[in-house]
Amino acid sequence: MTKPGAKPYLTTRNIEPENQETPIHFLRSDTIDYPYFYKRNHFPYPALTALHYFLPIIGLVDSPVLFSLRDIMNMPSKTIKAVLECSGNKRNLFEPKVFGEQWEKGAISQGTWKGVSLKTLLAASGIREEAAEVVIEGHDFGERKDLDNVYAYARSLPLNKALHPDTIIAYEYNGRPIPFKHGYPLRLIVPGWYAMASVKWIKQITFIDSKFAGPFQTIDYVYYPNKTNDEQAFPVTGIHVNSTIQKPLNMEILNTGTNVIKGIAWTGKGRITRVGISFDKGETWVDTELKNEHNAEYQWVSWSFTWFVTEKGEYTIMTRAADSCRRVQPMTPFWNRKGYGYNAIDTIKVKVE
Amino acid sequence: MTKPGAKPYLTTRNIEPENQETPIHFLRSDTIDYPYFYKRNHFPYPALTALHYFLPIIGLVDSPVLFSLRDIMNMPSKTIKAVLECSGNKRNLFEPKVFGEQWEKGAISQGTWKGVSLKTLLAASGIREEAAEVVIEGHDFGERKDLDNVYAYARSLPLNKALHPDTIIAYEYNGRPIPFKHGYPLRLIVPGWYAMASVKWIKQITFIDSKFAGPFQTIDYVYYPNKTNDEQAFPVTGIHVNSTIQKPLNMEILNTGTNVIKGIAWTGKGRITRVGISFDKGETWVDTELKNEHNAEYQWVSWSFTWFVTEKGEYTIMTRAADSCRRVQPMTPFWNRKGYGYNAIDTIKVKVE
Repeated sequence: MTKPGAKPYLTTRNIEPENQETPIHFLRSDTIDYPYFYKRNHFPYPALTALHYFLPIIGLVDSPVLFSLRDIMNMPSKTIKAVLECSGNKRNLFEPKVFGEQWEKGAISQGTWKGVSLKTLLAASGIREEAAEVVIEGHDFGERKDLDNVYAYARSLPLNKALHPDTIIAYEYNGRPIPFKHGYPLRLIVPGWYAMASVKWIKQITFIDSKFAGPFQTIDYVYYPNKTNDEQAFPVTGIHVNSTIQKPLNMEILNTGTNVIKGIAWTGKGRITRVGISFDKGETWVDTELKNEHNAEYQWVSWSFTWFVTEKGEYTIMTRAADSCRRVQPMTPFWNRKGYGYNAIDTIKVKVE
Repeated sequence: MTKPGAKPYLTTRNIEPENQETPIHFLRSDTIDYPYFYKRNHFPYPALTALHYFLPIIGLVDSPVLFSLRDIMNMPSKTIKAVLECSGNKRNLFEPKVFGEQWEKGAISQGTWKGVSLKTLLAASGIREEAAEVVIEGHDFGERKDLDNVYAYARSLPLNKALHPDTIIAYEYNGRPIPFKHGYPLRLIVPGWYAMASVKWIKQITFIDSKFAGPFQTIDYVYYPNKTNDEQAFPVTGIHVNSTIQKPLNMEILNTGTNVIKGIAWTGKGRITRVGISFDKGETWVDTELKNEHNAEYQWVSWSFTWFVTEKGEYTIMTRAADSCRRVQPMTPFWNRKGYGYNAIDTIKVKVE
């Protein structure tokens, strides 16, 4: 008999709606396949089939268009490998704690999306001059705790981001149709932005002449720096430069000798250029080895550091990523009331026995 | 199309060895079936088949015996429904933090074990007068970080606990053969004690005339009250009186109106008699409703409390269980260096919007 092995599972944060984390500490691949792709929902899953699916592009366009899935798949395609990171990733690490899903470090995933640039689709509809934003609405909807009406999940993009050639309407993930729970049949993918922008189960695309005021645009996914008022609030957009130590685990007990420390680093702007590691609480830093040094935009970098340790005791290990836009992880997170965009230097403790 | 649902998963703490938590917040059953039964291992799974399985009882017995599985299954059986709780359950809640697996609240499970009282088996071997303890050794073995040799997982019991009629050699869990990862074909079940005593994959049972000095008896599963020395250390044995709030989740956002608060409470000694709930940080307590008021020994009690809340704001919710041996959950946990037996009053925060 062969010894049975073990596999990691998604970490369950909630069931209704389904919110589950990628077991990021136990995965080493640069592509996260469906079973390990974190799930983040605001509402129950929509009842939706591809049978009669059409995508309308409406509002301030020259001529409204209704695309079939076949229309879209027949257009020139674009394939992008990208990190998707929930803006609440690492929310659990804020001090003082903030309310909401207590995501640890696994509300992040990476894979390859194939679709059509939104810009390509818009060649058919045109955009009127008055258009200021584009609203992407999903088929998912439901009640919110803070409001009385029923709302669909909907988000807007400014035109420059919507027309960026890497903003795509995707129909495949890792070479297969998008899994239903991740947005089948069509999902918007906005590489470089936190994943609230990458609307699932797209229902319609609408051009408007004003700032979109839906609750997922103006209440949620907003940084509120103050606990008791909404002053100085500003919207959540691009992914912050960040890193996560995957191995060892926090509070793990290690042997003396050689221990390989591994992790990932990512950013929403430019490329990761360095990942430093510190064993003295940030006094001094040494570079880790980047696995894919000439890493592509939007993708995480795997890094490793071979740590030779002879002295028993407790150690604090920190990692700090920097990107080509000169952004560096801060020592202290930017606390905000809803707990978005945590990207402080990653810190774990280990004991060497 | 019906809307797809969601199911919880075990929460992965480690893969080698496999350590995964029961998703206790998302289960409401009084019996936890295999897929949701937490897994706790010290070593890789043993390579073991039932084909040539025999159980030897040796050492200070009148006559050593070798039992086949058939022998054991033909003896008078005993069925016990019991909580199994890892002594490291809730370790993650200790402050200061302790090293080791960072179990949250799900290293606990409950189910029905069928087997033969160890006492019944011993009628065949007899026990010699010099015998002081019985050592139960599992088929699992491997290296430890703190020692140079290879060790099997082995634990001893004092004779009075070993001969208690509820201490059984189990061969079924919830009406089926024990799942391999939980000890197939035979597992010791010591109801009322933390689960390190319930040795899996039993290899042999040996009576000795001294205190067993194996590392899982004298290094691990020992309460060390001091961070820097081993003074005042004493062994981990019985389960402490305890409770866990399953719903709502910590840091959850709720609506005003009626919210049902639910959870479980359990103890290793006697029965749960009360579970109190407090909304003012422990100043005042009201009783929750116990679902199975005349609860059987060894089993958890499900409790609930209907909370009508009109005022928006942040709330701290605490629960405190008491048992028939007059034990009550303390406000402050008993900190110990290896992080065993956490049973402070369960505390969560919620926000009402």
